[in-house]
Amino acid sequence: MTHELEGLAALLSPRSIALVGATDRSIWSLAAYENLRRFGFEGRVHLVNPKGGVVHGREAATSCAAVGEEIDAALLMVPEARLIEAIADLKAAKVRGAVVLSSGFAELGAEGAARQRSVAEAARAAGVRLIGPNCLGLVNFTARAPIWTVALRRPLPNPTIAIVSQSGAVGGQLWNFAYQQRVGVTHLVSTGNEADIHVAEVIDYLAQQPEPRAIALFLETVRDPERFKAAVRAAHAAGKPVVVLKIGASEATARAAQAHTGSLVGNDRIFSALCRRLGVIRVRSVEELMVTADLASRLKGPFAGRGLALAAMSGGMCEIATDQAEEDDVLLPAPTPELAAALRGVLSDFATPANPLDVTGAAMLEPDLMRRALATLATDSRIGVTTFVFDIPAQDDQHGTVRRFLTSISQGFAEGGKASFVTSHALAAVSAEARALAEACGVLYSGGGLRHCLTALGRILSASPPREEGAAPRLAEETPRTERETLDYLGRMGAPVIPATLACTRAEAVGAARALDAPVVLKIASRDIQHKTEIGGVALNLIGDDAVGAAFDAILARARAAMPDARIDGVIVSPMRAGGVEMFVGTMRDPQWGAAIAVGLGGVWVEALKDTSTRLLPLTEDDALEMLQELRGAALLDGFRGAPPVDRMALARAIVAIGNAALALGPTLVSLEVNPLLASADRVEALDGLAVWDD
Amino acid sequence: MTHELEGLAALLSPRSIALVGATDRSIWSLAAYENLRRFGFEGRVHLVNPKGGVVHGREAATSCAAVGEEIDAALLMVPEARLIEAIADLKAAKVRGAVVLSSGFAELGAEGAARQRSVAEAARAAGVRLIGPNCLGLVNFTARAPIWTVALRRPLPNPTIAIVSQSGAVGGQLWNFAYQQRVGVTHLVSTGNEADIHVAEVIDYLAQQPEPRAIALFLETVRDPERFKAAVRAAHAAGKPVVVLKIGASEATARAAQAHTGSLVGNDRIFSALCRRLGVIRVRSVEELMVTADLASRLKGPFAGRGLALAAMSGGMCEIATDQAEEDDVLLPAPTPELAAALRGVLSDFATPANPLDVTGAAMLEPDLMRRALATLATDSRIGVTTFVFDIPAQDDQHGTVRRFLTSISQGFAEGGKASFVTSHALAAVSAEARALAEACGVLYSGGGLRHCLTALGRILSASPPREEGAAPRLAEETPRTERETLDYLGRMGAPVIPATLACTRAEAVGAARALDAPVVLKIASRDIQHKTEIGGVALNLIGDDAVGAAFDAILARARAAMPDARIDGVIVSPMRAGGVEMFVGTMRDPQWGAAIAVGLGGVWVEALKDTSTRLLPLTEDDALEMLQELRGAALLDGFRGAPPVDRMALARAIVAIGNAALALGPTLVSLEVNPLLASADRVEALDGLAVWDD
Repeated sequence: MTHELEGLAALLSPRSIALVGATDRSIWSLAAYENLRRFGFEGRVHLVNPKGGVVHGREAATSCAAVGEEIDAALLMVPEARLIEAIADLKAAKVRGAVVLSSGFAELGAEGAARQRSVAEAARAAGVRLIGPNCLGLVNFTARAPIWTVALRRPLPNPTIAIVSQSGAVGGQLWNFAYQQRVGVTHLVSTGNEADIHVAEVIDYLAQQPEPRAIALFLETVRDPERFKAAVRAAHAAGKPVVVLKIGASEATARAAQAHTGSLVGNDRIFSALCRRLGVIRVRSVEELMVTADLASRLKGPFAGRGLALAAMSGGMCEIATDQAEEDDVLLPAPTPELAAALRGVLSDFATPANPLDVTGAAMLEPDLMRRALATLATDSRIGVTTFVFDIPAQDDQHGTVRRFLTSISQGFAEGGKASFVTSHALAAVSAEARALAEACGVLYSGGGLRHCLTALGRILSASPPREEGAAPRLAEETPRTERETLDYLGRMGAPVIPATLACTRAEAVGAARALDAPVVLKIASRDIQHKTEIGGVALNLIGDDAVGAAFDAILARARAAMPDARIDGVIVSPMRAGGVEMFVGTMRDPQWGAAIAVGLGGVWVEALKDTSTRLLPLTEDDALEMLQELRGAALLDGFRGAPPVDRMALARAIVAIGNAALALGPTLVSLEVNPLLASADRVEALDGLAVWDD
Repeated sequence: MTHELEGLAALLSPRSIALVGATDRSIWSLAAYENLRRFGFEGRVHLVNPKGGVVHGREAATSCAAVGEEIDAALLMVPEARLIEAIADLKAAKVRGAVVLSSGFAELGAEGAARQRSVAEAARAAGVRLIGPNCLGLVNFTARAPIWTVALRRPLPNPTIAIVSQSGAVGGQLWNFAYQQRVGVTHLVSTGNEADIHVAEVIDYLAQQPEPRAIALFLETVRDPERFKAAVRAAHAAGKPVVVLKIGASEATARAAQAHTGSLVGNDRIFSALCRRLGVIRVRSVEELMVTADLASRLKGPFAGRGLALAAMSGGMCEIATDQAEEDDVLLPAPTPELAAALRGVLSDFATPANPLDVTGAAMLEPDLMRRALATLATDSRIGVTTFVFDIPAQDDQHGTVRRFLTSISQGFAEGGKASFVTSHALAAVSAEARALAEACGVLYSGGGLRHCLTALGRILSASPPREEGAAPRLAEETPRTERETLDYLGRMGAPVIPATLACTRAEAVGAARALDAPVVLKIASRDIQHKTEIGGVALNLIGDDAVGAAFDAILARARAAMPDARIDGVIVSPMRAGGVEMFVGTMRDPQWGAAIAVGLGGVWVEALKDTSTRLLPLTEDDALEMLQELRGAALLDGFRGAPPVDRMALARAIVAIGNAALALGPTLVSLEVNPLLASADRVEALDGLAVWDD
């Protein structure tokens, strides 16, 4: 435990807690006090009210200092105007950590943000670490230490998941849903406006705790990107997968988030790229977050294969599973002929060997069918996870039969030797008895239902391990501005660029064209002319000395007529290209996460179809190959309609080189765009390049 | 009630039920008997066992005939080999309807299908209508008449949804999930292999019943397309929305479904097109099916607007709602300045006027905030539905507070005057007390959670009313085969086609080109030459008599050299086109649903990007416009990068004409394809056409 994390430790493993502003008239105070009682918190609880008197049936102190005992953590339920005074009292009492419940700070705009800074500075000066303001508190369930202002139910046994949420209400709903599913929570931390302690610090702390086996996050924004990345890597290194629900997928959310927390919502696709790099699983709903975190916390890889073997007591459910698995990118390998024969040997007459496998209603009469079916399915070497679809009812009046089923399933899982779990058919509340029964039978049970469990499984199986960030290239100390300078720079940085010769005279143009021995393109070369085509500054598909010479003269004449003041360097002569696939490659800079790169189909298509793949820079060749594979139009690279396939490796190398070239231009480069990057079976070439600078 | 539906009426509203094959050793028999007892079925229940004796504690008859009383419905729990004998007994006893539980029929392949036909024929001869085989039975909850072989819980009050499922187990799971959500079910019918009664007939029957207010379907296949369409239309006409979960979205499902029920899984996209035409809402999971059917049954349109006003007691939840609404195509109109001012007047200081609207935790202390906020939000004329996000807890110990909140919400909804509902934050089981409390407060409550409710709402708000099928055009009695014949035919049918002249001599070709006064294209005209380009049968961009004449000679020479036996009609002369957007239009014929049409971006893109929109034929112009809008690449039609926008109306008219032209060619036409259909601001033209015949 670093010194820095001690304030958080005081809040999450307190020996004594003070409720400051405690009063019988406050629903927050009543709930917080009742939570401590219900949990059976073993430390000391102090009630503080400036007027003293009896609060919640106990004597209240008039200040923390007046308590006269050591206080680890304080819950400040005082109006915003009295916070500074309250913090002075914390200092006097040597309190180490405090939760600030109050709203009315940065979420209201600039004035509120200034007040928030004052509070944070006062706390820093007082040596008090702060959670909040504008939060609901934090809870350590395993230590039975709730500092939380809304009613909680008692902790569940064998908890595995820590919840960290910037929104207190959403954190409460995540816990609520987890409780319904009987998914045990180790910690629940709402960080609110993060005047002092950021979400990254909480993740860092949780990574060091033994209890959480996975971390579920709800994020509005990330205020400390470098620390966030380090904390997530630390969690992974400690074997704790991180699953995140982050708002910002819609344009409109950016506005809502500003209204709510004064946050800057970063570019959403870049955040997804970051998640991929960090091995973080990103989900889209409260339900998915908890179902995924639960499975990820209990279904530990590495998995023996990417495939899933799924069995159910219903053919219809198997069909639904097949559709949903395809949607979720979960592989369901069809049985080999040998496996099919083996399955026939263990199944009832009415069953058809398949995956998903319908064991049919015959299993109702003969539960051992489930064991045999599951053990046999798992012999397939492609299988990494085995699943049975089955509901454990809430009532224990049926648990005799259910126990027989679960025992048979458990034996089948054990004989199969693969990672395994039972899922309910649809999302179903799990009773305490059902969870206990599953544990007694040695079965991992999720009430997430087939749909959510398959979605979760798809994400878990395809989550890549965190990747190291590559070394950024050395700064190039150049500032290419024109198309020509940009392409020349790209060429020097190892990106393939179409050959080009600058011709200053008609004779030079003709000579350059002859040397190319092919149809050529002529383009005006001028730093002052952005839109070359519009002023007649481009001529295509020229063959022969006369055509080239005439085009040279015409281009210069048109350029001078259109823009008499433009500085003209001459005319560029390049070979004319035809065929191939036009790609788009562009870099951008995110204020939070740094440089990123997008790849898509080029020409007008990139904007019309929005078919791009995004990653943070720098890239590896594998990253670039993966990006190409992600494009909806990836089939165009495979030699569509008789054309030979594009050289994907060469294309990937070109993309990596463009990314590195952008990085080498440093942080004042806004964007480096190559469009088109023309790719074919035997050649990849940048035909046009554009560098945009922040100046 | 038509005479035909009387057999189904006997099964769904029976006055007397016989359990045939009843025995204490069968879990099915035990469950079926116990269900009748638990429901308090008011008619007569007869137990039939060939050995007589005491079954389930009662005297059993040795046959239905031996019962000596009128029997409306029989549940046949006898082995497949004894079914014919059992049906003879039903005939003797004048039983009108029977459920066949047994498996071992068409789902096992050809032999099983033959056995199934024998059973169906025996039943028809005996005047007995059959449900099944390979099903779990059917239940009329409002009549307390369960004929169902798995344990059911007692009916819920105020049911609204009928469930029809081809899979018995899936039907049971749908009911199970509905029960957890306290969504009342009126009927549950599993149709199994549909040897006699098809799902269409059940829908038809339910459309005529007063109780169901919506119908939820699980389909593997549709065996009687015309009747299905009529039944769904009848349900809509009776004000009962139809929501369907149909498998077959994946390639693999087609195989699984064959293994399971011997079904033919039709083309999935055509089924989606059918749903759109019929006004059927298609969903993707068990959860979505029941959440959507529940909302559709209780949230009746027409709606005052397409927009949703959403409020919650959490800014974080509002942000999540914003993201999810965008994904689900639900509009959340931002408040106008006037509305924002009005909201400021009714909200707490810490709240920001917005939609979604965070009423903040202040509403905990002052529930009337919710009323004021909801009533004010609903004044926006764009709003059709108003929603509050709030969980009604399962336990009634908090119901005093909760009742105050719900009453305030209910008043806000009523004052707002728009369709409205409360949704839980995440998917949550609903207790009987919670449902009763919501009803007592006059609030429509769904435990489906924000995610599922927004998805459902998006589908409900965008579901179009069922559309009439247009009249099919008169048969054309033509069989165009060559490109030329196809384009000429399209032209006669009102589709715009590029001008073309057949030239048989060089002089004719030159004359035709001169008449066009533009660059021209020459193409070989021969019914025997499919791949014109490959044999050098096409020449592009020809200008001037010499170029045209030379190309004419060269094309003929190359064609004769490449295919000496080909019948050559001459050479087609057409103007050369450049620019515009290449579209693809193609028709196909689905064995179940008839002729359909797909529209996409043309060229190689249609196959690489799979960006197409599909509809059944015939089309209206509005259909065609809607198809264009659905394309991911629709932006390309809006004048991308400075080009003027495509004339969408002219394009839509061309698509309608192509569809009608395909229909007029009758059922032996496999496909009529136009690729490209070139569209620009001032011209839409078919450049190439292909008709494929089934011969």
